[in-house]
Formats: sequence, structure tokens, C-alpha cells
Amino acid sequence: MRWAVLLAGGSGTRFWPLSTPQTPKHLLPLSGAISTAEEAVERLAGLIPRERVLVVAGELLAGRLRALLKLPADNFLIEPQPASTAPALIWATWEARRRDPDAEVLSLHADWAVGDASAFRRTADDALRTAGAHDRLVTVGIVPSRPETGYGYIVPGAPLDEGARTVARFSEKPDAATALDLMAAGALWNSGLFAWTAGRLLAEVARHTPEVAPAVPRLEADDVPGFFRGVTPISIDVGLLERSGAVAVVTGTFAWDDVGTWQALARVRPKDPSGNVVVGIGVLQDSHDCIVWSDRDPVVLCGVQDLVVVQANGRILVMPTDRAATMKQLLDALPPEIRDIDG
Amino acid sequence: MRWAVLLAGGSGTRFWPLSTPQTPKHLLPLSGAISTAEEAVERLAGLIPRERVLVVAGELLAGRLRALLKLPADNFLIEPQPASTAPALIWATWEARRRDPDAEVLSLHADWAVGDASAFRRTADDALRTAGAHDRLVTVGIVPSRPETGYGYIVPGAPLDEGARTVARFSEKPDAATALDLMAAGALWNSGLFAWTAGRLLAEVARHTPEVAPAVPRLEADDVPGFFRGVTPISIDVGLLERSGAVAVVTGTFAWDDVGTWQALARVRPKDPSGNVVVGIGVLQDSHDCIVWSDRDPVVLCGVQDLVVVQANGRILVMPTDRAATMKQLLDALPPEIRDIDG
Repeated sequence: MRWAVLLAGGSGTRFWPLSTPQTPKHLLPLSGAISTAEEAVERLAGLIPRERVLVVAGELLAGRLRALLKLPADNFLIEPQPASTAPALIWATWEARRRDPDAEVLSLHADWAVGDASAFRRTADDALRTAGAHDRLVTVGIVPSRPETGYGYIVPGAPLDEGARTVARFSEKPDAATALDLMAAGALWNSGLFAWTAGRLLAEVARHTPEVAPAVPRLEADDVPGFFRGVTPISIDVGLLERSGAVAVVTGTFAWDDVGTWQALARVRPKDPSGNVVVGIGVLQDSHDCIVWSDRDPVVLCGVQDLVVVQANGRILVMPTDRAATMKQLLDALPPEIRDIDG
Repeated sequence: MRWAVLLAGGSGTRFWPLSTPQTPKHLLPLSGAISTAEEAVERLAGLIPRERVLVVAGELLAGRLRALLKLPADNFLIEPQPASTAPALIWATWEARRRDPDAEVLSLHADWAVGDASAFRRTADDALRTAGAHDRLVTVGIVPSRPETGYGYIVPGAPLDEGARTVARFSEKPDAATALDLMAAGALWNSGLFAWTAGRLLAEVARHTPEVAPAVPRLEADDVPGFFRGVTPISIDVGLLERSGAVAVVTGTFAWDDVGTWQALARVRPKDPSGNVVVGIGVLQDSHDCIVWSDRDPVVLCGVQDLVVVQANGRILVMPTDRAATMKQLLDALPPEIRDIDG
């Protein structure tokens, strides 16, 4: 049967001061009226039932996720410590196989904005069928809409069938010139939407991922903390997909965004005729290409452009949109009493 | 004896959303820890005692001014309706003469930031002595520090004595090129700091100010509302000083500012090494020449310049500093429910 594994961790820094460690971006209604985590579960409707959606996150978020997502209580897999995506996905895949020896797993993240849910489901269905038919680890590559330097790219190789190809290589976070070259050469964004059979995933891990494989027996012994203590944190891309020969790619044509910065709201939210995105009460005069988010006070902008203006959790942030990608440096330099937000 | 007349009206729009009709700029601690209205009274200490400081304002501000300024109750002259500066100053001068037939009057505004209180008092003393010695209406001209287009200018004429000169002409709010020419030619800012004997002022009004003179008998009849109903609103500059031949100018060398816009805070408040003014809690990273005012939330600016960022009275305003002069247009275009601030 088909299972979904929803990765729902996150440090809560990218959308400061709105996001916090207790409420990272995927718990916020960034792209619409509900959180992207809820959207992620809703989006699977008709493809994978809620009973077979597993969620991986840390203890800090467990309560909020349980309340939001309304999944069976034992579908929440609470990591005892963070260890990047390979251990999380390997654990969840192992757990799916424990419950269902024939488990096929779709791996996804809780922080995505997706333009077309039907196209998403069709592509996910393709990926799962490809994973079974070719016995490969299948990545979904998104047709890029811009030469984004914050994403990884997949360069497709030879055709496997009508929809699937092998992977020639992965290219992680290229510089701007390389991103343009990759885009021109038909490379795809590595979305993190993956599909595999549990059996193939665990076999490939045994062969290629020494950072995690030796700890897998701890899972057999029902010792999850021991598993996490025994692994070296590593991503599934670096720790497995880039090493395995048994990889394939199918192409996703739906709009996809990981809503990684305040600037991303301009891609995933409706804009006014001047290119502004306003969430909350905002009045913009002679201003364009701004992003305004207010959880309390009306915000008046006059004669400005390309600014992010946020009021949230008792803080006000003003920065150019093109600084949004450097939020971590900004926060590192803030006095803790201003940076740290309760609750 | 010497009397001061403090003009303390104001519509409360220039420092929106901090200033309101109930709390216009001169009731706010814009240039320091106390309001400019309080500073104005304190600054007179040693020159004119509080018992002889008259304050002219509308009913809306009467309560706040009484509480702030701690002057005798009957020193507050409450205008039944606004009518610009000529009726206000003529009424107050008339009232001073009623209490003291030999009254000499110093006229000043409640919204000034003054750099050097001693120099201010010396100049005011000069102006009062000149008014008596030459029996003229005396203006204090401030040596300009920039070609400001928002002020009026005084072009001095022939010397009257060591410190005083006649006035060749007034030039109201020149364009930028004219302001530069005026500055180069030695013209002075018309500050609104005036001195006259009550007798000379009322005699000149009778001769030159038909907009007000016919109503003065209403004051004799103790009918202040009738006086205001009988006048045509006009400024003392246009309605009298520009018309009278009996005018003189003395030169003020102290820093003087009417704190007319948010941008003015950069002149009257201490700046950080990057030219930023911050009132309230602000953290500025890689930002310069900004003005930040917050009455509640910490404000974080990153990578911006020449911005005004204000949180006050439950509103947030962001605009370039050079837009601060157009606040009235901004407010006219705001929805009333955002523009209008209670209390």
C-alpha cells in the first residue's frame, strides 16, 4: 500500500518575527488561509488516506502538529534529536514497512506551496508507479521557472519509459551563472518529493549510507533513541540519492515553492496591480513590489518599493526584499531579548 | 512689563500616526524628554516669569496644556474658533495691555526646538529692547543653516543700531533656487519670534489690518467670540508685518527648528554614527539616515536607508524621509478608519 511521509521539522527562523521555533513556517498560513502543513495533508486526498500519512518532527512541534493535522496519534514520529533528512526518512520508511511489508512511500515536506493539487497528485502517482515498475528511488524534478540559486537541480539522463528518466547527476545550490546554464540544459529542481518502495530504499541505504545503515538494527530492537544516537546527520540527497545508481526522475509541471523567505510570498500569494502582497490591514500609496504582513496594526506605506514590512509577535521588521534570504545572519546579530519570541 | 504669548494651536497631522488632533506635535517629546510646549515655557525662565506667559490655543487642547504647562488658569486664552496668527496675537496683546498698560510682548510658538536657550534669551531680550527703543515691531531673523523652502525669509535693510536693522522685504516660502539666492544674500529665516510694545502693535493693526482692526472693539466689550466672528483669518506676517513700515529685524544665531516633519528629527535629535535617529527600541543593521520611532514594539531595520519607520497609536508608517513633507496629502488619501486615531 501507499504511504506518505511528511517531514515537518524546522527551526522557525526564516519568517522571523512571524515564525518562531514553536511555530515554524509550515505551521503558518503563509500561502493561503491554512498552514502549508495542513495543505500538504489535504493535497494527498484521493491519493493516500490520512491513516497512512506519517509525520516526522521534533518534540517541540508535536503538540501543534497533532492538533492541526488530525491524523492518528501513532502516525506522529517524534525525533528524539534532529538528524537531517536521511535518518528521518529511513526511520519513517522502516516504520511504514513494519506496519505494511509492501509499503510504497511518498516523501514530502510540510512547507510547500503547490499551484495545482491535481497535477501534484498525478505526478506523485507517476512517481510511485515508477518506483514500483523500475524498482528505483524516484525523484520528482520540477520544471524551473527561474534560475533559483537556493535549490538543488537534477540533470536527467536516459529515458526509462514514457515519463521517467535516469538521473545523470545532481547539482546542489549552484551559483547564478550555473543555475542559468542548468535551466537552459533542461535540468529540473530537486523538490524533495520522492517515491520508493520500502524494500528498495532500505536496500540502497544498506549499500550506500554508512552514516545511517549501521544504526538501522536499533529500529529492529524498537530503540529509536539509540538509532538517532547512532547516526551521523546527513541529507537523503547527499547520503543516498547522489550515491545510488538506482535513481530515476519524473517531471513535475505544477507550480512548486518551498516558501523559503519573505520574498517567496510574492510568488505564492495574490499581488495587487503594483506587485504588492498585503496580509493584514495595509494601505499602500505610490508603493510597489512590497510585502506587508501585519498581525495587529494597520500598516501604511508611502513612496517605497521592494520592501518587506512585517509586524508579528510584538516585533517590527523592515528590510529590502532581496535581503530576505539572509535572515539567519540578521537574527544572529540581534540581541537575544529582541530576537527570541515567547510561544 | 514683559509678557510672552505662546501660540499653541495645531492640527496634529504632521507627525501622524504619533500626533493627533488631541495631541499635536508641540505636546509631544519630539526634540527631547519633554514636549516642545513645556520647553518653550522653561526656556523663558529668567526673562519672563510664568505669571506673564499667556497661551493661545483651541478648546480641544486646553485641558492638556493646562496640565502640562502649570501656568495660572487665566493665562490660557482659548480661541472660540481658529483664525490664524494675526487675530490670536492681537487678542493676546490686547489682553496683556488690559492687565498691564505698559506691556511689552514677546511672541513665540510652542513647537520649536532651540539649540541654545541662553542665546535664545539674549536674542529675545535684544528684540524686546529694540521694540521699546525704536518703537517698532521687531522680528527675529535666524541665520539659515540650509536653503529651506518651507520657511519664510526676511531680507534685512538699513542698520537701526548695533544689532537691529530695518526690513527690506519678506519672502514667503521660496522655491529652491530662490532660497539659495536668499541665503547667499544674507536673508534670514522668519522664525515667528517677534517683540513689540502692546501700544505699537495695536496702533499698527488699526492702520494696516482691516481684516482684524474693526473687530477689536469687541475685545473692549469683553466679547471674545464676537471678536473672532468679526475677523478674517490672516497671518500676522501677511496681515501686518509685510504691510507696516515700522518693522525691524534682529539676528538670532541659535539653532532653531519648527520640527515640521518627521525628517526634522534628524536635525533636532542625536544621531548614531550612521545618521539614524531612534526613539524607542530599535536595532539597525547596515542601515543609515533612517528615523525610527516606536511607542511599543522593537523595530528591526536591515539594509535600508533614508526611511521613516513609525509605530504609534496602533498604526505603522513607512516612507522615505523626503516624503515626510507631504504628510497632508498622504493623510487625505487614507481611509478614515485608519487615519483617525482616538484620544
